[in-house]
Amino acid sequence: MGEHRLNLSTLVFSVAVIIVVSHSAGSLALKHSPRFLRKSAATGTDFAPPQFHYETRYFQQRLDHFSFSDLPTFPQRYLISTEHWVGPQRLGPIFLYCGNEGDIEWFAQNTGFVWEIAPRFGAMVVFPEHRYYGESTPFGSAKEAYKDATTLSYLTAEQALADFSVLITDLKQNFSANDCPVVLFGGSYGGMLAAWMRLKYPHIAVGALASSAPILQFEDIVPPETFYNIVSNSFKRESFTCFNYIKQSWNEITSTGQTYNGLERLTKTFNLCQKLKSTGDLYDWLDSAYSYLAMVNYPYPSDFLMTLPGHPIREVCKRIDGAPAGTNILERIYEGVNVYYNYTGKEKCFELDDDPHGMSGWDWQACTEMVMPMSSNQDSSMFPPYEYNYTSVKEECWNDFGVKPRPKWITTEFGGHDIHTTLKKFGSNIIFSNGLLDPWSGGSVLQNISESVVSLVTEEGAHHIDLRPSTQNDPRWLVEQRETEIKLIEGWISDYHQKNKAGFDM
Amino acid sequence: MGEHRLNLSTLVFSVAVIIVVSHSAGSLALKHSPRFLRKSAATGTDFAPPQFHYETRYFQQRLDHFSFSDLPTFPQRYLISTEHWVGPQRLGPIFLYCGNEGDIEWFAQNTGFVWEIAPRFGAMVVFPEHRYYGESTPFGSAKEAYKDATTLSYLTAEQALADFSVLITDLKQNFSANDCPVVLFGGSYGGMLAAWMRLKYPHIAVGALASSAPILQFEDIVPPETFYNIVSNSFKRESFTCFNYIKQSWNEITSTGQTYNGLERLTKTFNLCQKLKSTGDLYDWLDSAYSYLAMVNYPYPSDFLMTLPGHPIREVCKRIDGAPAGTNILERIYEGVNVYYNYTGKEKCFELDDDPHGMSGWDWQACTEMVMPMSSNQDSSMFPPYEYNYTSVKEECWNDFGVKPRPKWITTEFGGHDIHTTLKKFGSNIIFSNGLLDPWSGGSVLQNISESVVSLVTEEGAHHIDLRPSTQNDPRWLVEQRETEIKLIEGWISDYHQKNKAGFDM
Repeated sequence: MGEHRLNLSTLVFSVAVIIVVSHSAGSLALKHSPRFLRKSAATGTDFAPPQFHYETRYFQQRLDHFSFSDLPTFPQRYLISTEHWVGPQRLGPIFLYCGNEGDIEWFAQNTGFVWEIAPRFGAMVVFPEHRYYGESTPFGSAKEAYKDATTLSYLTAEQALADFSVLITDLKQNFSANDCPVVLFGGSYGGMLAAWMRLKYPHIAVGALASSAPILQFEDIVPPETFYNIVSNSFKRESFTCFNYIKQSWNEITSTGQTYNGLERLTKTFNLCQKLKSTGDLYDWLDSAYSYLAMVNYPYPSDFLMTLPGHPIREVCKRIDGAPAGTNILERIYEGVNVYYNYTGKEKCFELDDDPHGMSGWDWQACTEMVMPMSSNQDSSMFPPYEYNYTSVKEECWNDFGVKPRPKWITTEFGGHDIHTTLKKFGSNIIFSNGLLDPWSGGSVLQNISESVVSLVTEEGAHHIDLRPSTQNDPRWLVEQRETEIKLIEGWISDYHQKNKAGFDM
Repeated sequence: MGEHRLNLSTLVFSVAVIIVVSHSAGSLALKHSPRFLRKSAATGTDFAPPQFHYETRYFQQRLDHFSFSDLPTFPQRYLISTEHWVGPQRLGPIFLYCGNEGDIEWFAQNTGFVWEIAPRFGAMVVFPEHRYYGESTPFGSAKEAYKDATTLSYLTAEQALADFSVLITDLKQNFSANDCPVVLFGGSYGGMLAAWMRLKYPHIAVGALASSAPILQFEDIVPPETFYNIVSNSFKRESFTCFNYIKQSWNEITSTGQTYNGLERLTKTFNLCQKLKSTGDLYDWLDSAYSYLAMVNYPYPSDFLMTLPGHPIREVCKRIDGAPAGTNILERIYEGVNVYYNYTGKEKCFELDDDPHGMSGWDWQACTEMVMPMSSNQDSSMFPPYEYNYTSVKEECWNDFGVKPRPKWITTEFGGHDIHTTLKKFGSNIIFSNGLLDPWSGGSVLQNISESVVSLVTEEGAHHIDLRPSTQNDPRWLVEQRETEIKLIEGWISDYHQKNKAGFDM
């Protein structure tokens, strides 16, 4: 179960950037690393995942596709279902989900959209796991794979894309399905992979649905404040007083922490299982809650990360605002984050992550390629103000992993600075879908680029909500968004069939 | 000088495939590896290369761009000239030649086209060297770099493309030239790199002139007989009797070799410095001469590989056909290949390569990624018939380098099976230029794909003749071909400027 939780902790993006908090109170700058879903945060045990049927298989992959080093191969797990596939004669499509930073079974369970539309398309469904996650660990075990920078060094997006390409090429051959069109799906980092794969391996697939894919969250392409501004706005739109309570709470925490017995008082107020070591740890814990609440701010109850009510931020603010008169700020905050960390009411106390710089896959990726600058703006953000500082990132990464980040590599390899031109000239058949409530939407593509590279933006959507299993509570706009996506995908496949029928003149 | 020769020996493609010769006489199948330009073949000492002016600089490159292994960097040499560059304010273009398998200075000297048109475009010129060639060797020296499969393992096309992309990104930044359009050039393998770079790094450059780039010479995309059929046709079109003499000569060599003192007689007939060890070595030597004659079958005297007359195959056949009546076949052949190996008449005797399986960069590439199937057809080829046999290739590569080829990797990584669709949907601004005399033209793109992905085919052109320095003897069609190329490149740049002026709507 501990293992299971660890996997869950990487499901949606970790905000694994090391940021320097300049406390407005002028106290010591704290380094902390807000990350996703602490160990303390149990997932809802009531969660009954949808039952999708698949086989689990393994494919031996090269550790380094781009060199001929004599390295051990590793088994890449993939889930596959041919239940609804109409087969190679009828050019049945292949739906390939680009596995992201976590256990692939979890992604499969939470990507109901792909399973639900497969019968309609007569499609094969394949969910390959991302290397170094879940069971797809090189060197025989996660422990060995995560041992040090040397063993981790092949955990990169380019290697993952090559894994997908090699796997699908092999599968097509084994199924005599060389002419069957492949459609890519991906959410969050997986959505980035799907979009990039469309640019880097255009011969492999006919199109990609890249949901909540912040491919522009690099260097100075979007302002570094974007992410936390969106989180903050999600609270502000529910309640300005709620936004303000949260904004004020950081100073309150800092000043309380500085008093005699202050950390003990904070420990008690926030019902922590262990005595708080520093206010920074509490900052992290709260930061995580707010950030992930913004991501999973779905309009219906969900169990994606935690068991949550519909419109969870509304619920958080209701509790913060609605506490009896005289309740102090920190008690209000505690009431609020309870919605996130303990909606089921089953937690007796909360464990903060006691190893904030411990090794995890996404932390490694954030310290190597996925260098995403994040700041918090004094005026527009409810978080403590801080300015992104690459030097600190570099130092932290060196301390944590003994690795030097390459902050410009992603844009060199995949582009980004002039993504509109690149996508217009070279991209085709990509859907960038985003919900504006999602803090990652700010780093994604939010405008139509061309006839076939389109952006689907929903005002009320959160993190890749379109990929989730449909529910009876789906609002109209979500049903319509999915219908649009289905039509676009149908268009890609029908274009492909027409071209295929016409033959090639070569 | 020996060093110099070694570099020359990789200038144009080596046909570094290991093929099994099934002698029609039914004798033992011989393995040989026809390669380019033997050590015995001195280059013309009269050669006075054009004097292009450039600075030589070095850029520290990562050995593996796609992992974070802690490997030593290496200095990539590049030649650079800003003499005619109009600078960043005027968005002066950057001409980037994709260095291929050899010393970059040699390519710079033999790619006069780029230097000659740079002033007209106000362009900066950059010639980066391909890793593991010339001076751009990892691990401190060529000896160390070529030591074994481990040190060689980073010699791949993908790493070379990443080198170019990282270098140009850095240069642009240093010259404040982020908005300056980059145009790619490349011939032969360098042309493949230019075309692939256009597909893989569309955000880096605005277009590519890929001259004689056989990107389709993989797997079963083109028939494996293509290459040797074109070589054979180049002889047949000059003289059918010449073609037939050559076709008959192989049996003659084999049967002579099998007689008492036969190898000594062959040694004498072909004026070899050392006694012939096997007829296979002689096969290789002749195969090389014919293949490279077809590549450099230029209409004017040249010194590209060897000092040669214009229309060298015509000259070879003149000597083969024109020998006095009673001259036997092998003596005729000897007269013919003298045109190739000793046109200056300075060679006293010929050294066959005594290390046919020695390590060289292209041999490694042919044993890893660049697996190009080559056969010789009984009817249409003047070479001994043989069928491509991947199993032998695999064995040879294992014996020579301790490496397993990945014959399907190039098409997985770069596509190829349905290149028209890929190029049509994803490519833009690529010129595939080919001369039909060039045996590599058969594996290249010979049809227009779209408005901006065009094929320029010349009936009388040989291996990337368009990239060579202009001469007073250039035929009309060549002058016109280059003018077309210039106009197309002007179009790319002017499109870019228009788009740049219009700004982006993001």
